Amino acid sequence: NSKLKIFSLNSNQELAEEISEHAGIPLGKSSVTHFSDGEIQINIEESIRGYDVFIVQSTSQPVNENLMELLIMIDAVKRASARTVNVVMPYYGYARQDRKARSREPITAKLVANLLETAGATRVIVLDLHAPQIQGFFDILIDHLVAVPLLSDYFLNESGIDLENVIVVSPDHGGVTRARKMADRLKAPIAIIDKRRPKPNVAEVMNIVGNVEGKTAIIIDDIIDTAGTISIAASALIESGAKEVFACCTHPVLSGPAVQRINDSVIKELIITNSIALPEEKKSPKIKQLSVARLLAETIVRVHEQKSVSTLFD
Amino acid sequence: NSKLKIFSLNSNQELAEEISEHAGIPLGKSSVTHFSDGEIQINIEESIRGYDVFIVQSTSQPVNENLMELLIMIDAVKRASARTVNVVMPYYGYARQDRKARSREPITAKLVANLLETAGATRVIVLDLHAPQIQGFFDILIDHLVAVPLLSDYFLNESGIDLENVIVVSPDHGGVTRARKMADRLKAPIAIIDKRRPKPNVAEVMNIVGNVEGKTAIIIDDIIDTAGTISIAASALIESGAKEVFACCTHPVLSGPAVQRINDSVIKELIITNSIALPEEKKSPKIKQLSVARLLAETIVRVHEQKSVSTLFD
Ligand SMILES: Nc1ncnc2c1ncn2[C@@H]1O[C@H](COP(=O)(O)O)[C@@H](O)[C@H]1O
Ligand SMILES: Nc1ncnc2c1ncn2[C@@H]1O[C@H](COP(=O)(O)O)[C@@H](O)[C@H]1O
Repeated sequence: NSKLKIFSLNSNQELAEEISEHAGIPLGKSSVTHFSDGEIQINIEESIRGYDVFIVQSTSQPVNENLMELLIMIDAVKRASARTVNVVMPYYGYARQDRKARSREPITAKLVANLLETAGATRVIVLDLHAPQIQGFFDILIDHLVAVPLLSDYFLNESGIDLENVIVVSPDHGGVTRARKMADRLKAPIAIIDKRRPKPNVAEVMNIVGNVEGKTAIIIDDIIDTAGTISIAASALIESGAKEVFACCTHPVLSGPAVQRINDSVIKELIITNSIALPEEKKSPKIKQLSVARLLAETIVRVHEQKSVSTLFD
Repeated sequence: NSKLKIFSLNSNQELAEEISEHAGIPLGKSSVTHFSDGEIQINIEESIRGYDVFIVQSTSQPVNENLMELLIMIDAVKRASARTVNVVMPYYGYARQDRKARSREPITAKLVANLLETAGATRVIVLDLHAPQIQGFFDILIDHLVAVPLLSDYFLNESGIDLENVIVVSPDHGGVTRARKMADRLKAPIAIIDKRRPKPNVAEVMNIVGNVEGKTAIIIDDIIDTAGTISIAASALIESGAKEVFACCTHPVLSGPAVQRINDSVIKELIITNSIALPEEKKSPKIKQLSVARLLAETIVRVHEQKSVSTLFD
C-alpha cells in the first residue's frame, strides 16, 4: 500500500490499531499532547507529502475535546502537503442536533460538517449516521457505512437463538427502515414500538404494533445513550408475551445510568460495535462488542485504490 | 440602545455582567447546558431577529469546551436571524500556535479564525493578540483593543511607586514594542531581557540590556502562563541592582505552578486584567486584577452605533 497512511487520535486507539492490522500497514507516527494550559499540541512525525491520509477519530465523549483534536490534526495533515485528507469517523457526535426542533436552536450537526470542511478534510467515512440526511450537510465526499450486516451476522451465526422464532423490533418510528433491513437478513417479521404521550407531562405509553407472543425479540437502534427507552421497551415486550429480548445498536454512547439500566433490565444480551470505545468501567457480562475494524480497513484500502466500496454497504 | 443584545457564555460570566452594566442593557437570555453525553445544548430564549448581537467568550481553559460553546452559539445566533454576529473574545486561545515553528505542525490560530468565520461570525473584537499578525488571519471585521493604557494608568495613579525612578522591562525581544508603549506613557526608559542558550540542553542565560540599578522595574508581557520566565527575569533584575520589581500582563493564563511561582518570586505585585476569569484558588494578595469591562462595553456600543472606536485603542 504505497502512499497510504493511517493516523489514530485519542478517542479510539484500540480500533485504529485493529484497522491498521487489517489494512496491513502500521499506524503513522504522530504526537498529540497538551500544553500546560490545556491547548492541544499536535506534531506529525513522518513525511506524508503526496499521501492519502486517513485519520481515525470518533467524536464521542469528551466530544468537544475529540472534535478539536480532529480539526487540529486535519489542519496539520493538510499543511504537511497530504494528497487527500480522509476523516474516518465511526461515531459522528452532535448528529442528534440535526434540525431546529425549536426556535433559535443551533443545527450543530451541520456546523460540525462545515468545521471539518473548513479545517481541510477532503472526504469523511462515517458509520450509521443518526439521520442519513446528514450526508447532504457535506459538500465534500462522504461514504456512509452501515452496521446492520455485522449485527445480523452475529444473530445468524453466533447467538444460538432459534432463528425460526425471531421478531425484529424498532424502538421508534424513525428506526423502522433499519429494523426492516435486519429483518430481511434474519428472514423475520418486524414490530414497532409506538410511543405516545396521552397528555403533556404525563408518562409516555408504549404500545407494540405487531405480535411478539412467544417470540425472541431483537430491538435494533442506532444509538443507545442513557438506555432509558430501550429498558422500558424491553419490559413492554416481555409484558406483551415475548419469550426473551435481545438488543443491539451501532453506537454505544452509554452515558449516565446506561450500563446500570441495562444490567437491571430484562434485556438478555446487548450487542454493540466498537465505533465508540468502551471504557473498563462500562464493561458488563451482558454487553457484547463486535468490531467494525475489518469493515473500515477494507473501506480505507478500497478508497485509496479507487475501487468501489458499494458492496460493503449492504 | 435599540436592537443591541449582549450574550454571555460560560468562560467569563462576571466580565459579561460588568460589560452589560457599563453598556446599560441587561444580558440576553439564553441557556447553555449539557446533554447526558456531554454534548452542548444551547437555546436562545428571546427574539434577536434584526439585532446586532455580541457574544462574550474568552477561549481560556477549558479552551476546547469554551471554543465549541462559542461556535455553537454563533450558529444559533446566525440561524435566529441576527443582523450581525459579533464575537467579543478578550482572550484568544491558541494564539501562540500562529506559525509552523517546526515541520508538520498545525497553525491552530488560523484554524480558529476560519472556524469562527465558518460558524457565522461577522466581526470579532479581541484584546492584545499574542501576535498582531493574527488580525490578518480573518477575512471578517476585526477590532484589536490594547490594555497598555489601562495597565499604565494603574502605575501612574494607583501604585504609589516613585514615577521618577521607573524602568519598563520587556521579558523578550518580541515584547519590546509593547514595553515601549508603556514607557512612553510612564515617561520612563526601557530595558530588554536578552535570553540566550549558550549550547543545546544548557540552561538559558538572562542578560539585561539597559541599566536597572536602583530602579523600580516593571516587566510587561501579554500572556503569563506558567510564570517560569517572569519569575526568573525578576530575580535577574534584582541581581542586576533593581530596587524592586513589578510585573503586569493582559492575559493571566496562570496554568500549572504559576501562582505558586509568583508567590515565591521576588515580584512585589502582579497586575493583570480580567480578560480571563481568575478562579478563587488562583487568587493571591500579590495579584491585582483590573477590569477591561468599560473598554469592551464602550467598544460594543460604538460598534453598534457605527461610531469610531480608534480613540479607544491608544
Ligand atoms: N446529545 C444529545 N443527547 C440527548 N438528546 C439530544 C442530544 N442532541 C440532541 N438531542 C435532542 O434529540 C432530539 C432529536 O433526536 P431524534 O428525534 O431521535 O432525532 C432533539 O430534540 C435534540 O434536541
Ligand atoms: N498553549 C501553549 N503553551 C505553551 N507554548 C505554546 C502554546 N501554544 C503554542 N506554544 C508554543 O509557543 C511557541 C510560540 O510562542 P512565541 O515564540 O512566544 O510566539 C511555539 O513554539 C509554540 O509551539
